[in-house]
Amino acid sequence: MSEQPVEAFEPPYYVTVFTSVKTPDQDGYAETADRMEELVQSIPGYLGMEHAQNPGGIGITVGYFRDGEALAQWRANEEHRAAQKRGIAEWYESYSLHIAKVERSYGFTRPD
Amino acid sequence: MSEQPVEAFEPPYYVTVFTSVKTPDQDGYAETADRMEELVQSIPGYLGMEHAQNPGGIGITVGYFRDGEALAQWRANEEHRAAQKRGIAEWYESYSLHIAKVERSYGFTRPD
Repeated sequence: MSEQPVEAFEPPYYVTVFTSVKTPDQDGYAETADRMEELVQSIPGYLGMEHAQNPGGIGITVGYFRDGEALAQWRANEEHRAAQKRGIAEWYESYSLHIAKVERSYGFTRPD
Repeated sequence: MSEQPVEAFEPPYYVTVFTSVKTPDQDGYAETADRMEELVQSIPGYLGMEHAQNPGGIGITVGYFRDGEALAQWRANEEHRAAQKRGIAEWYESYSLHIAKVERSYGFTRPD
């Protein structure tokens, strides 16, 4: 997981924005999140991921993918689908997922 | 700022994903962020916003807008532009901004 912003790639590419509030029952969550982060890197066209979490509040995970084929592969992954089902059953109080095609992007890095 | 996920609206709509790492100099930042949150609500077609921050690390702000006209109004807002300039001059070590059109969305809320 990057602790610098993932770069502003040349459009078009895709972002997946997953925002969630969790339940008190987080048994197994951290291991699954680590495994998903490892697994997604095997998807051709995966570009990067960021996550930020307010303590006791909302979490936001953003994924970056080159094209619809990369998204489709990630969506169809069996281990990913099993993790999604467990998330609904146990880990999430509520979530929203937005899948969007990037039309413009801008990046800034402070000069040394 | 919502502490629940902003809803998964009916596509199409737009998301703006702003990810940043801040400098040590945050003088005036909180007041400006509060003012921008107030100001964006006056934009017709503004749908909502979420923010999550890792302590000492990355922050992610996601904005939701109905259409390109709403985005254009927010981009052209003079007070917003002044805040962006101050951000580059003082507050941000690095950032990326991705502006994207939502093609699919999914929401989940745990039944009571």
